[in-house]
Amino acid sequence: MASNAGEKSISAYGEARSTVEGKPLDAEEVRKMNAYFRASMYLCLGMLYLRENPLLTEPLKLEHLKARLLGHWGSDAGQSFTWIHMNRLIKKYDLDVLFVSGPGHGAPGIISQSYLEGVYSEVYPDKAEDAKGMQKFFKQFSFPGGIGSHATPETPGSIHEGGELGYSLSHAFGSVFDNPNLITLTMVGDGESETGPLATSWHSTKFLNPIVDGAVLPVLHLNGYKINNPTVLARISHDELTALLVGYGWKPYFVEGSDFDTMHQAMATTLEQCVLEIRKYQKQARETKTPFRPRWPMIVLRTPKGWSAPREVDGHLLEGFWRAHQIPITDVRTNPPHLKLLETWMKGYKPEELFDNNGTLIPELKELAPTGNSRISANPVGNGGLLRKPLNMPDFRKYGFTDIVPGSTLKGGMANMAIFLRDLVAQNMNNFRLFGPDETESNKLAEVYKAGKKVWMGDYFEEDKDGGNLAPDGRVMEILSEHTCEGWLEGYVLSGRHGLLNSYEPFIHVIDSMINQHCKWIEKCLEVEWRAKVASLNILITATVWRQDHNGFTHQDPGFLDVVANKSPEVVRIYLPPDGNTLLSVMDHCLRSVNYVNVIVADKQEHIQFLNMEEAVAHCTKGLGIWDWASNDQGSEPDVVMASCGDVSTHEALAATALLREYLPDLKVRFVNVVDLFRLISSMHHPHGMTDKKWKAIFTTDKPIIFNFHSYPWLIHRLTYKRPGQHNLHVRGYREKGNIDTPFELAMRNNTDRYSLAIDAIDLVQSLGNTAAGVREKLINEQLAGKAEAFNNGLDPEHIRNWSWPWPNK
Amino acid sequence: MASNAGEKSISAYGEARSTVEGKPLDAEEVRKMNAYFRASMYLCLGMLYLRENPLLTEPLKLEHLKARLLGHWGSDAGQSFTWIHMNRLIKKYDLDVLFVSGPGHGAPGIISQSYLEGVYSEVYPDKAEDAKGMQKFFKQFSFPGGIGSHATPETPGSIHEGGELGYSLSHAFGSVFDNPNLITLTMVGDGESETGPLATSWHSTKFLNPIVDGAVLPVLHLNGYKINNPTVLARISHDELTALLVGYGWKPYFVEGSDFDTMHQAMATTLEQCVLEIRKYQKQARETKTPFRPRWPMIVLRTPKGWSAPREVDGHLLEGFWRAHQIPITDVRTNPPHLKLLETWMKGYKPEELFDNNGTLIPELKELAPTGNSRISANPVGNGGLLRKPLNMPDFRKYGFTDIVPGSTLKGGMANMAIFLRDLVAQNMNNFRLFGPDETESNKLAEVYKAGKKVWMGDYFEEDKDGGNLAPDGRVMEILSEHTCEGWLEGYVLSGRHGLLNSYEPFIHVIDSMINQHCKWIEKCLEVEWRAKVASLNILITATVWRQDHNGFTHQDPGFLDVVANKSPEVVRIYLPPDGNTLLSVMDHCLRSVNYVNVIVADKQEHIQFLNMEEAVAHCTKGLGIWDWASNDQGSEPDVVMASCGDVSTHEALAATALLREYLPDLKVRFVNVVDLFRLISSMHHPHGMTDKKWKAIFTTDKPIIFNFHSYPWLIHRLTYKRPGQHNLHVRGYREKGNIDTPFELAMRNNTDRYSLAIDAIDLVQSLGNTAAGVREKLINEQLAGKAEAFNNGLDPEHIRNWSWPWPNK
Repeated sequence: MASNAGEKSISAYGEARSTVEGKPLDAEEVRKMNAYFRASMYLCLGMLYLRENPLLTEPLKLEHLKARLLGHWGSDAGQSFTWIHMNRLIKKYDLDVLFVSGPGHGAPGIISQSYLEGVYSEVYPDKAEDAKGMQKFFKQFSFPGGIGSHATPETPGSIHEGGELGYSLSHAFGSVFDNPNLITLTMVGDGESETGPLATSWHSTKFLNPIVDGAVLPVLHLNGYKINNPTVLARISHDELTALLVGYGWKPYFVEGSDFDTMHQAMATTLEQCVLEIRKYQKQARETKTPFRPRWPMIVLRTPKGWSAPREVDGHLLEGFWRAHQIPITDVRTNPPHLKLLETWMKGYKPEELFDNNGTLIPELKELAPTGNSRISANPVGNGGLLRKPLNMPDFRKYGFTDIVPGSTLKGGMANMAIFLRDLVAQNMNNFRLFGPDETESNKLAEVYKAGKKVWMGDYFEEDKDGGNLAPDGRVMEILSEHTCEGWLEGYVLSGRHGLLNSYEPFIHVIDSMINQHCKWIEKCLEVEWRAKVASLNILITATVWRQDHNGFTHQDPGFLDVVANKSPEVVRIYLPPDGNTLLSVMDHCLRSVNYVNVIVADKQEHIQFLNMEEAVAHCTKGLGIWDWASNDQGSEPDVVMASCGDVSTHEALAATALLREYLPDLKVRFVNVVDLFRLISSMHHPHGMTDKKWKAIFTTDKPIIFNFHSYPWLIHRLTYKRPGQHNLHVRGYREKGNIDTPFELAMRNNTDRYSLAIDAIDLVQSLGNTAAGVREKLINEQLAGKAEAFNNGLDPEHIRNWSWPWPNK
Repeated sequence: MASNAGEKSISAYGEARSTVEGKPLDAEEVRKMNAYFRASMYLCLGMLYLRENPLLTEPLKLEHLKARLLGHWGSDAGQSFTWIHMNRLIKKYDLDVLFVSGPGHGAPGIISQSYLEGVYSEVYPDKAEDAKGMQKFFKQFSFPGGIGSHATPETPGSIHEGGELGYSLSHAFGSVFDNPNLITLTMVGDGESETGPLATSWHSTKFLNPIVDGAVLPVLHLNGYKINNPTVLARISHDELTALLVGYGWKPYFVEGSDFDTMHQAMATTLEQCVLEIRKYQKQARETKTPFRPRWPMIVLRTPKGWSAPREVDGHLLEGFWRAHQIPITDVRTNPPHLKLLETWMKGYKPEELFDNNGTLIPELKELAPTGNSRISANPVGNGGLLRKPLNMPDFRKYGFTDIVPGSTLKGGMANMAIFLRDLVAQNMNNFRLFGPDETESNKLAEVYKAGKKVWMGDYFEEDKDGGNLAPDGRVMEILSEHTCEGWLEGYVLSGRHGLLNSYEPFIHVIDSMINQHCKWIEKCLEVEWRAKVASLNILITATVWRQDHNGFTHQDPGFLDVVANKSPEVVRIYLPPDGNTLLSVMDHCLRSVNYVNVIVADKQEHIQFLNMEEAVAHCTKGLGIWDWASNDQGSEPDVVMASCGDVSTHEALAATALLREYLPDLKVRFVNVVDLFRLISSMHHPHGMTDKKWKAIFTTDKPIIFNFHSYPWLIHRLTYKRPGQHNLHVRGYREKGNIDTPFELAMRNNTDRYSLAIDAIDLVQSLGNTAAGVREKLINEQLAGKAEAFNNGLDPEHIRNWSWPWPNK
């Protein structure tokens, strides 16, 4: 068998053992805090079990119970315990505290706290601080039409639902960046600690500046068990765990045990020690104006899982074991002795000593909580939209490319947009940050560093002077963890600020699940009246699939759009600006918006430009439109519609149009470009959607449409489902064909290159007949010659790379 | 400014500093190993730059260079250096070693090693060990039609491409489970160390048993920089890094410096120390038959990034800085002095001393490498399909439910399948493992523990005896990290074994990107002749969306199927068995298959059963078919086709059919069920697809089809795009509507409940006219009554929960 570590790490039971000792509380304080804790535990059980008889004034009967028992007990006690001790310090030191609940399904603990401090009843007056309110408060929990068992948007003071585990610390750090007075007390579950995102987010202190930022105070809640397994961190030695946390850069304080009286003393001493250390480091850095990286304090709180439940039921362990994870006694509806056991247990908290005859918390307990916005669940940061200040936007039009020769001028739209972004950063120094996993420079956004460097609180070397762009007080946040970047950004936005994540396209799938959860969060917020809207979460995706020819197959995946498009139309927006000026217009629009997830897809390389600024704004405003200058169907019906969405896709589609104009000048080609992807969808299904009438006017109902798309082609079929003439729609896109190629070859493999598109047009326009056969052959020959040259030289031919064509209509 | 740590942690330069000291090499050995290292570095630069003149026998000219310079230099030296030192120990101790290359784009280092030890030329004879072969070897690298800059499937000995960072350690652990003699030497990049998946995978030692498993020897390669940033782990103090690794459970040995002679001695001593410790722990555990968790040895190798490059170019740092990440000197094609510099640099490795006139490595260097399969890149584990033994399968038919009354018998198909899985485990003790993030019991698979418990090498507590199911030599791998589970499974399968991952549906998106990468890996393997096929990667998804009513909105996401469906039809398969016997049949099929990613979606709760075993096998073999017993259109055309895919969806669709049969007995309803999702697609686009002829025979071309689908409805539209009569297809599925509900309410919100489906049928069958109006109203009333009852009771009405209907045809 594996070796056991010493007693110190094994048991969560007995009198408190803690790193710092002390007895700051007098007996009366201990008594009151314990009573407050009992009130909280009583409310938790009430939420799990009761729909009637909230104060157990009658003997507990079956009809008082919910028919379906749902909810989680395991982490409630530890979270309540911690909250209560922070209340004491808020009152003592006038602290500004937000609470982030990391463990899964720990909502009863924190909702009970919100109810006890009166916030819940203020926000939801029908859940008043009396017996009737308590009954409603109990019944709604995990009940149809009610609230969930996580810290959902309905929970006052919450910015972190925790439905999916692993993001508590990164969300917490996001909330304290540029919030110098805030302390975000963060319960970290020992289960979620096994997730990758949580494991790496401990390193966030290397990016936190004690002068401009607040502090995160993590409480690693070692309650020992997950759903059905021990947790890794609860089964390594005390020394190993200490080493791990020290290695992550923290100073861990341990509070371990189960005896309430001594645990209250231990927690009170330790939490106070942590708060004082935080204030000391902040003071030191701020007074000396010398940022440094303290070994920030944190707490390891080891208590039994389901603390204060019966230790055993029918000879099986309950408290302190994984059986306490969810509903602690499951068969109370069918097992009368167990119903009795539940009643005895609940009555053991002595509700009659805690709540008066009306069911209101008695005054001597009530006064343990802070008041007003000092109450944790009333902290305005927990409803960050209230604090949101619109960005001070530079006029994006001033940054546009001028004198565009459409289809000819070659420029780097991303590098140009970075100038706009630089000024945006400069004008919003405490209200905007740029996030990215070590790709900001690679993504041509380095100009931003001139306004705000990369935040770095790790060690500095002499060599950093040679273009390191590091600073303690930067504005750009870079760590090679998409999870951490995204978590920081979410926390930053949810606490009322603005931001942008830039990332390579191929690996944005790493955070699919986080984006899903954020979409769900902001969608549910729309249903919660008191929630003010937060800034949109903006994701700029670059290094796109069509320029991943050289990195190969692993770097080719444009499918993030499919994941996003599955989310509710209320909250997702997708933009694919075709060139530099449209990129500016789209960025401006997204940065001004609220409550969306905006996804912007644009390549970072130099590309041919198409629209001057005025045209770009008009085009983006419409979201989709005919480009007259690239069409020759004026005054008549087209023979074929060439449509595109995405920059490289537009480039090839336009080149195909030019080939057709040159070789088949009589063929009427209409050119359509799509910027705002959801314009394609019916107006019945998305706020940005368009009517069938409008659709017909642009795409016709009977002409072949060749649609060159940035991503997998199916998405266009899905969005245009049931459109008139949808059977005429031929979508080209990435079809999972690629290896080590040149850009042209990669396009060819997927039939998205100009020649394939022009040949498609010839094949689809039936009226062309034999006249086009020669052109078709010519196109195939040119295509093959291009491929051969690329294969020989390892480089696409010059005439393909730097293609341009004089558009007579322009 | 942030404080700096001591010198010890700052510099990668100078004479070696190492944890253990010693000079095991004589001067001659050092000279030879250094020469071998120079040969490797020369080859790396050759790959990055040259297409001709491989031995630089002529002065270097522009035409010898590739036109487009691609590839990465940064981590090559450290990886080669480590490989060379392991070669010495393989020869000395007859070790069995696999190499996993974690850092991104480090392929030149390891491909050069494969070439030097002769494996590359054996596998690819045109890349022979002579000048002509070397020229081809150079040219193909990052060149169209050639090989990529990662350890792609084309790389001999590789099971880990590293195109996406973060999975090196979990893959490595997967390879050594049940491989007691194997040591997987794993280079871990300090960049990838910042990713979440890597950060948590260090804990894998808590799941490795030194008796039955081999060992992973990580070399954390602190080369200091990512693309454009310092790395976090290279910028914390020596003590902090030590603490972190000790806390992760390892014993770190440091080897730091840049001076080659002393670095060779330090690495030789240290690597040997690590290998001897590994062997000592294994011997101890195996001889005493007492498994324990050693603090396994690992190495921190701190060398300059781009080691052995010029330190500066034009006054800017190159070696030891992020500029050495990719092509180290980028402008050699346009800057003649830089071309000269490159030539001087390459000649500095003295190729003429390393390769003879034919371009063949000289014998005294050749003999430094092991021979035959002892060569790292020839290790058969690196082509795991060669070692794959088919599973010894129990006859799944014997586990089937008997005496099924279709649409009436209520059973738990998942719990039943677990019995089959238990016996499968028992019959394949060293060849199969079950993986899951703490959900195996919750997923009703606990029966498996009777054949193999959960592997646990953390501490044991007394309380574990109360149903802990933990053991050092278990068969089930559970850690609350989908990333780690998936990485272990991938490594296990790629090294020639079999496995199954079970996971909740809502959070399987956490590993979207990993699954994408695995799909891409096995697809590319199909193009590599010498790669033998590996077992399929099997993913069992349960706790599905339709039973996440109580966990709420965050737990409702069936969109993983969309991500999988975007991958190549050559490698992905999706099954949605409607009941217990079909689940058994599907599991059997998947576990026998090779080279796929199989996704099986099945809920874990009790559900109504439909098919006896014979029918189930026949149905699964067809993949899709009409259920005659649930249809009443025999001998005629149906009025409407009711189709379903997914267990709960099938349940509701059948209930709708029963309602229609009861209320509108003259209405001819054809019932179709789909198990194999890709049957829906055209046979032109997927190997499992069916012809339009077959489609018509089942779905008709002109009758309304109501398709009740498990996931987002769009996927069905996509798969059936251009099918005859596709405009008659009305798909119902999850539409992102949900909160805290009952199952019935959740279905109602998304129009997938029986009443909505029956009403759909009435609305779509035009011939019904007024006769059905009363029925429609009745259905609506029943639906609303059900909803009201659910809302009042917190529980669906009994007649909805336990619905059954006597099917007269059965």
